[in-house]
Amino acid sequence: MVARQRQRSFWTWGFREDEPNEDVRQRAAKSASNRLGREVKPPVIPSIESIQLRDSRISIPSRLQSFVMDDQFDRVVHTHGGHVLELLQAIRGEFPYPPDAVAHPSSDQELEELLEWCNRDRIKVVPYGGGTSVVWGVNPPADAERVVTVDTDRLNQILEVDEVSRAAKFQAGILGPDLEAELKPLDLTLRHYPQSFPWSTVGGWIATRSGGHYATNHTHIDDFVESTRMITPSGWFESRRLPGSGAGPSPDRLVLGSEGTLGIITEAWLRLQVRPKYRASASVFFDDWYQGTRAVRTLVQTKLFPANLRILDPAEATLAAGVQTNQALLIIGFESADVPQNHQMNTMVEMVRDLGGQVNDEDVVISDGSGKATGRKGSVGQWRNSFIGVNAGAQLGLGLLSDTFETATTWDNWEHFDRQVRTKVGGTLKRVLGNGSSLSCRFTHVYPDGPAPYYTFSGIVPIGHEVEAWQEIKNTANEVIIDNGGTITHHHAVGRLHKSAWEAQRPELFGSMLKGAKASVDPQGLMNPGVLIGD
Amino acid sequence: MVARQRQRSFWTWGFREDEPNEDVRQRAAKSASNRLGREVKPPVIPSIESIQLRDSRISIPSRLQSFVMDDQFDRVVHTHGGHVLELLQAIRGEFPYPPDAVAHPSSDQELEELLEWCNRDRIKVVPYGGGTSVVWGVNPPADAERVVTVDTDRLNQILEVDEVSRAAKFQAGILGPDLEAELKPLDLTLRHYPQSFPWSTVGGWIATRSGGHYATNHTHIDDFVESTRMITPSGWFESRRLPGSGAGPSPDRLVLGSEGTLGIITEAWLRLQVRPKYRASASVFFDDWYQGTRAVRTLVQTKLFPANLRILDPAEATLAAGVQTNQALLIIGFESADVPQNHQMNTMVEMVRDLGGQVNDEDVVISDGSGKATGRKGSVGQWRNSFIGVNAGAQLGLGLLSDTFETATTWDNWEHFDRQVRTKVGGTLKRVLGNGSSLSCRFTHVYPDGPAPYYTFSGIVPIGHEVEAWQEIKNTANEVIIDNGGTITHHHAVGRLHKSAWEAQRPELFGSMLKGAKASVDPQGLMNPGVLIGD
Repeated sequence: MVARQRQRSFWTWGFREDEPNEDVRQRAAKSASNRLGREVKPPVIPSIESIQLRDSRISIPSRLQSFVMDDQFDRVVHTHGGHVLELLQAIRGEFPYPPDAVAHPSSDQELEELLEWCNRDRIKVVPYGGGTSVVWGVNPPADAERVVTVDTDRLNQILEVDEVSRAAKFQAGILGPDLEAELKPLDLTLRHYPQSFPWSTVGGWIATRSGGHYATNHTHIDDFVESTRMITPSGWFESRRLPGSGAGPSPDRLVLGSEGTLGIITEAWLRLQVRPKYRASASVFFDDWYQGTRAVRTLVQTKLFPANLRILDPAEATLAAGVQTNQALLIIGFESADVPQNHQMNTMVEMVRDLGGQVNDEDVVISDGSGKATGRKGSVGQWRNSFIGVNAGAQLGLGLLSDTFETATTWDNWEHFDRQVRTKVGGTLKRVLGNGSSLSCRFTHVYPDGPAPYYTFSGIVPIGHEVEAWQEIKNTANEVIIDNGGTITHHHAVGRLHKSAWEAQRPELFGSMLKGAKASVDPQGLMNPGVLIGD
Repeated sequence: MVARQRQRSFWTWGFREDEPNEDVRQRAAKSASNRLGREVKPPVIPSIESIQLRDSRISIPSRLQSFVMDDQFDRVVHTHGGHVLELLQAIRGEFPYPPDAVAHPSSDQELEELLEWCNRDRIKVVPYGGGTSVVWGVNPPADAERVVTVDTDRLNQILEVDEVSRAAKFQAGILGPDLEAELKPLDLTLRHYPQSFPWSTVGGWIATRSGGHYATNHTHIDDFVESTRMITPSGWFESRRLPGSGAGPSPDRLVLGSEGTLGIITEAWLRLQVRPKYRASASVFFDDWYQGTRAVRTLVQTKLFPANLRILDPAEATLAAGVQTNQALLIIGFESADVPQNHQMNTMVEMVRDLGGQVNDEDVVISDGSGKATGRKGSVGQWRNSFIGVNAGAQLGLGLLSDTFETATTWDNWEHFDRQVRTKVGGTLKRVLGNGSSLSCRFTHVYPDGPAPYYTFSGIVPIGHEVEAWQEIKNTANEVIIDNGGTITHHHAVGRLHKSAWEAQRPELFGSMLKGAKASVDPQGLMNPGVLIGD
């Protein structure tokens, strides 16, 4: 096995050290027991050695054996992504479709040799960043004859920092915290914090068009990409580093969202920020959810571009931020490396009060320029802590089912859309998970022309029936989103999970064009088959 | 001929009414005579009737004759785009490659019938918006057997306005002033003003990724596109209207910049603004060009997102804004529909003074919220007037040659890049146009990671030798841009003019992918051959 500092967990997001310990699991079981009205115990996590895997169907050429592995550990860890049903399969020891081998290339030469081998032997290739995909985007396909998963964990360096233009060249496999740690001494930051931040990679963010820190203006990783480098079965693809261009369709925009179907992203130049010094945050309460979302619309349309402008419906405000008043909670945040943010914040607080928002003066926190974070206390702080790096592992297999789905739609459609989701998905939830089920919503990102709503559901499920229950709910959610003009994903990606809904959403001819584009670089259809493009 | 309100000019950008009159032409000739030191007269503009055209090589099916024309006027007008060499050809009566017919479809049905006919008879199709292309993007290709130009002038309506989301659905052929006139009573505006604004179209902007009003943050039309609709030889392509999405590569981003090679863009939803009510502008002088551009870098990196942040080098400041002090001129502008801009402007003025900029207090103009424009007086006003709707027609054929080229590059590269341009292009200019030639630069758009410099050159050329002289200069410019890391175009598009330089710039495999995508919707290669993609 390739030496690595931290071992990935095979049943939670992240590393062994991120796994919930026995104490945490016991507490989760106790809490679940209370909710269920009967005692449940934390399921026994199988040992890696005890997991039954089919035999590897390939033999690794000797010259590749220094970085291509077929040991039990690597194959187990790379069987599943990060979706709740996959984690559930994992703790139950179900690993039906493991990769036949796992590659850990660390150089251009190794990448070239690897793809040459896969090309020649028609081995399918699944690119793998942090393994946090919640859309079944990193699994070996069930019907593939032979599969190599390519983990970018050894491509984990910052290759160059350009402090003048504020950009850096990253290898694709670098993890969020590692890149931030390296940028910090330079007073620079990427400030891209998807929920998977501690365990996901630059390459994964680009491949899936991840959504990040900024709630307005520059929301997706797309907005930070200066150039990309990718190896395809037909060779290297490398775009020129540019701040802006109008030269034909953008090469990077075809790589962004390609989800490993065109090649393995190996490097990218990304735009950086100077670390914020001036900050301001405020929390605002609304008695009515739609009154709140209408206020958000007005605020985002003024284009003051706050870094944070996220509203939680009353249910979500209770769950995630401890709000006990059945009110919607709006969190506003401004930040800047250069200019004090009190003027912007005061302007927005005045606006939001005019729009019916309730703001306590002590909930408006404006920093003194020391760089100290605001918004780490009260409801805002509680919300923040419930957001990044949350690990679902503790609740697995306890008879509770929870998952999320997210979308975006225009403002004119929003309230109708939300009512449809609540009626239809709410109806299915009640039927499948019973009266105690819950459905809540927050906006993760907002645009002048519409919000990106993010729904969370949960409820009680008979142990052993999680998959069917989940599928029924998911079907309703997909249908409501597609029928009511939303996008099947704002930042979770398509993968295998959303493929049919995506096909219903996108222009049919765009599907043909993508297939045409793919065929030109991957004529044998080796790259991540079953995801996004292809049959 | 199809009735239209305004007849297009065949030798200037725009309409007959935009042609410089005899008085203007005489004055231009007198000014040229002074510069040349000998008398030149305005060339005689040929009458349309006198222009020799090859016979049309197609016969228009009778059912299409209501909107497909092959009269002299339409064929003459659609032979050339808007590049200075084309206009020069036009006034000289040179129309070697006219389209065989010109279509003016006004409905989906007509578009479908048209493409069905072209498909069946293998007729090449050149989409045509406002005809202002400066990159030879709308010409019938010299080697095509049969060509129909498709003018979108009858697709000129706003189909729907969504005031809640601030967006509207435009037909592709609507012109800038027409759409603004229709939005004005609703207090809305697109605020996209490429230099061709009076004569160019929504469809053309999308096809070419035009650059607009905003100097920072949202610069290209790309940033305003919610969805697109396009007819291809394989049928309709229509993307879903969304404020944001992460579902696969963006369909719209493949349409943006496709320059008519995939299909004819027929409609688009674009994001709108409420008309600005609060404005502020300032002019700043710098003794040194690079001191000025370094200040611009610092200003744009603070992310206050001014609407205007354009710097002119001393030569350009003299030519375009009447500055007589051999200083660089920076123009700063803020605008908002909702919030006063004095704070932003005062913050930036303070910053720019710290950076060595000279600002007279009376050159900082902050509006009272009446919506009245600031920045229409002094150097800023003069610059503004020299920018939009300038028509090169008056100077044609007088023994003067002028043209522009534009690019974008990262800040770390900028000063070296600019020096290379000045040395190499300047050298060629001196050799080809003599000592009196000039080369100047301004930034049209700026990004946190780099500027978009725009160069203008002019000089004296022997009448009749314009093409060779121009080609020699252009070759040097292309070479300098490509060799020094720039993009061959920031917002002028690729067309036939920049095709080989674009091929040198883009990832080779991206070319293959685009060809693959094109082949899937245009298997016979009918759409705008020779532009961007293809041989």
